[in-house]
Amino acid sequence: MTNKKDINAGIIIIGNEILSGRTKDTNTSTLAIWLNSLGIKVGEVRVIPDKENIIIDTVNLFRKKFNYVFTSGGIGPTHDDITSESISKAFNMNYGAHKEAYKILEKYYKPGEFNDGRQKMAWMPMQANLILNPTSGAPGFNVENVFCLPGVPSILQSMLGGLKNKLVGGDPILSETINLRTVESEIAKSLSEVQNRFSDIEIGSYPFFKSGRLGVSLVIRGEDQKKIKKCCLEILEFVNNKKIEIIK
Amino acid sequence: MTNKKDINAGIIIIGNEILSGRTKDTNTSTLAIWLNSLGIKVGEVRVIPDKENIIIDTVNLFRKKFNYVFTSGGIGPTHDDITSESISKAFNMNYGAHKEAYKILEKYYKPGEFNDGRQKMAWMPMQANLILNPTSGAPGFNVENVFCLPGVPSILQSMLGGLKNKLVGGDPILSETINLRTVESEIAKSLSEVQNRFSDIEIGSYPFFKSGRLGVSLVIRGEDQKKIKKCCLEILEFVNNKKIEIIK
Repeated sequence: MTNKKDINAGIIIIGNEILSGRTKDTNTSTLAIWLNSLGIKVGEVRVIPDKENIIIDTVNLFRKKFNYVFTSGGIGPTHDDITSESISKAFNMNYGAHKEAYKILEKYYKPGEFNDGRQKMAWMPMQANLILNPTSGAPGFNVENVFCLPGVPSILQSMLGGLKNKLVGGDPILSETINLRTVESEIAKSLSEVQNRFSDIEIGSYPFFKSGRLGVSLVIRGEDQKKIKKCCLEILEFVNNKKIEIIK
Repeated sequence: MTNKKDINAGIIIIGNEILSGRTKDTNTSTLAIWLNSLGIKVGEVRVIPDKENIIIDTVNLFRKKFNYVFTSGGIGPTHDDITSESISKAFNMNYGAHKEAYKILEKYYKPGEFNDGRQKMAWMPMQANLILNPTSGAPGFNVENVFCLPGVPSILQSMLGGLKNKLVGGDPILSETINLRTVESEIAKSLSEVQNRFSDIEIGSYPFFKSGRLGVSLVIRGEDQKKIKKCCLEILEFVNNKKIEIIK
């Protein structure tokens, strides 16, 4: 059995528009922050093209490798939306009009407006569970541990609320951030010494430029609030000794 | 031999800060747009944690799978920067102070300021070629077809100029965009018919919400300008027939 602490997820971003650089992916960040709040860590993200064999292989690998898998993109009505059919194949399930999804969409559109393109959005693995879409009607779906969401960020975000009780997370992942007016090389040695004393705390160090000035964000992450606090105090100790400014 | 048309690259984004959702990755988009302009298509992106074995495995897989590999992140001075050492291991090369990098950094810092943390930034595969950094001194490096760049977006971007002549691209990838005031399901069928007539043109359809209004961006990509133009004309034909507004 998986240790309750180690519940993880993999994210698959499906879409040529991300690989071409045209669109910057923000769904990873949205999903990761939300999953973290449920105690689920993201282990890996892959951005892959709209190609059936690659989608099938990646989904089949990820659903064994991670407790949960989230896909984003490719479930719309156009010819380049091939995620639903690919997922059906990955699970050896029939790809067809999902009864419940069809009903939802039929009701969503005015009579006479439920055209072929819109009907395609009801096509998915026929045994899938639906993920309701409060924004634009067309549902996502879930098969076993795989959750398929659309690529449009605002729609994806609106669908997460309804998903929460389908996931079992571990202990929530807690974090504290300390922002310093310094450069990494000034603190690298002391920081490394603190990290060595806290094996189950992860200290990340991220340089930034803001309003033309340099700084470093330290992110202290773990599952034990007391240890995080102790670790922060040790960091603040060397920060004070070095007379480094803390940015509030 | 690889067909000159099919030069591709894989991108590996290394960093827990992306997997935690704290930082949104923009380096993929920067790299992809720049690579496209050189005629190099991005085939896949992986976001992986700062873990040595995962970095080694991913780099070793990607350098066989793609013509070029770009890594971003993990080459700074702190304890969580383990990319340079991992890449050394992936190539079975000695990890140590790179003579040229050491000289550059020694010169960059004032006497007495070239501390341990800063010296660490000269540590990399000792036989690597340097990628010069016009922004903040510390160079990236290149071993065979793998190019290691920093995670800070502005620094990464500033280093691309010096890299151009190290890459051999294919035919530039051209694209046209048509923005429509419609929804995807209105055009899905006609668009699919056009796509079927153009096997070597890729038509992407991307819905958007902007200023509270719905629209669809069609991106027509390929290597042959004439075919792209012909494909656009066929799209515009059905767009006009359907009386759909074109957003300029």
